[in-house]
Amino acid sequence: MTRYEQQRNFLKSHFLEFKHIKTDKIKGLPKPPIDKPYDSSSIIIDLPKVNENVIKEENIYECIKGRRSTRFYSEESLSLEELSYLLWATQGITSTTKTGLTLRTVPCSGATHTFETYLFIMRVDGIRKGIYRYLPVEHKLLFMFELDEIDQKIDAITLDQPFVPNFTKRAAVVFAWSTIPYRSEWKYDISAHKKILIDVGHVCQNLYLVSESIGAGACAIGIYDQKLIDEVLGLNGDEEFILYLGAVGKKRK
Amino acid sequence: MTRYEQQRNFLKSHFLEFKHIKTDKIKGLPKPPIDKPYDSSSIIIDLPKVNENVIKEENIYECIKGRRSTRFYSEESLSLEELSYLLWATQGITSTTKTGLTLRTVPCSGATHTFETYLFIMRVDGIRKGIYRYLPVEHKLLFMFELDEIDQKIDAITLDQPFVPNFTKRAAVVFAWSTIPYRSEWKYDISAHKKILIDVGHVCQNLYLVSESIGAGACAIGIYDQKLIDEVLGLNGDEEFILYLGAVGKKRK
Repeated sequence: MTRYEQQRNFLKSHFLEFKHIKTDKIKGLPKPPIDKPYDSSSIIIDLPKVNENVIKEENIYECIKGRRSTRFYSEESLSLEELSYLLWATQGITSTTKTGLTLRTVPCSGATHTFETYLFIMRVDGIRKGIYRYLPVEHKLLFMFELDEIDQKIDAITLDQPFVPNFTKRAAVVFAWSTIPYRSEWKYDISAHKKILIDVGHVCQNLYLVSESIGAGACAIGIYDQKLIDEVLGLNGDEEFILYLGAVGKKRK
Repeated sequence: MTRYEQQRNFLKSHFLEFKHIKTDKIKGLPKPPIDKPYDSSSIIIDLPKVNENVIKEENIYECIKGRRSTRFYSEESLSLEELSYLLWATQGITSTTKTGLTLRTVPCSGATHTFETYLFIMRVDGIRKGIYRYLPVEHKLLFMFELDEIDQKIDAITLDQPFVPNFTKRAAVVFAWSTIPYRSEWKYDISAHKKILIDVGHVCQNLYLVSESIGAGACAIGIYDQKLIDEVLGLNGDEEFILYLGAVGKKRK
């Protein structure tokens, strides 16, 4: 197969072939944890309870109709309440099954939820600039570190695309979703990877719609420097690596 | 590289490598059409103008909070107004740029929108059972053909998964999204395929949320018989093939 054929082939369903594979789950190997551990001495920030009061446009039809990739933002900050709502809408847990699977605001094949959410925070009220990780089980934020010249780093990560410096510099927050593919490979083996990509699309669509609902705009970023962003965030690039990004900021009046 | 490594590698950004590729766009090859042609003698069904009156739960927060993969449906039909709204929310065109790109209710890298939407219609008021295609430019439905034993065909396509017969038999409509990958390959070459998968996730998330808003439920289906569904729909399986499915029906009381 040429690389082209391989790539198209990747998009297809290989379930009939997959059916005969002995997955790690079938082999009885231990199920991977649903979230990434963290050091108990870390700085943890409570997120306010998700509160509908942050919503300015609650009508779903208007949010869908108004959705646009927004690349120019105002200087306004997001409130911590707004950030809490965006995180809940993209990865928030809405219930847990008896077997310990998390059901969230977004669907995910087999409820394997392979994503971790990293945040480049530029302007959120009451929070210092820096790099954070969302803790969905606790609905809290983990402060990871400050990042010198965060705007320039984002420009470099997004490969100085002509439209990017203008938007990421002024974005209030950039979401960066990583995948830990083994969470899905354990169950789906070679069928995992197609699902992981579709699932991150579910997540980002919610980011778009809820951004609209708070008078903000979002822009998905699929073009980025893989090695650089994984290095910046301290991901090993194999067991965990960034998959997709989304910038958010308040709209210009 | 092992197949495993290849698959993980597919999830990553290869933009630095891609930058040096001479894409068909750069080579000056003609841009592929944004939609699939159809025979002018086809039966075309006007869709009612999208109308907010079909929405029962307009609050976006409630739609997100209530979202669940719904696998058991009532016997109730969808109205044509409701179907019109679901199609608009998933692939509807909300504006067109000067250069002829369509901007839609869902984001898509480079506005390449590689998808066609096929419908297995079981119960929509005023419409006979059968296979249809959505025409996003006209916001109309193209009747393709009747399908004998449509429920059993769907069971076979979805590989008789234990939970599927119960839901697809009673689903009012099953959406099946194909991709015509060249629409994106023309612009992004080997970077196209990752984007295509993420983009279909955007589409399906809107299907979930708007289904909630009309008192219906959706369930994404990622496991299916590739060859069979492509054959049923008359797709050649290379230039166009099915990527993802979503069942929709009214919720049981």
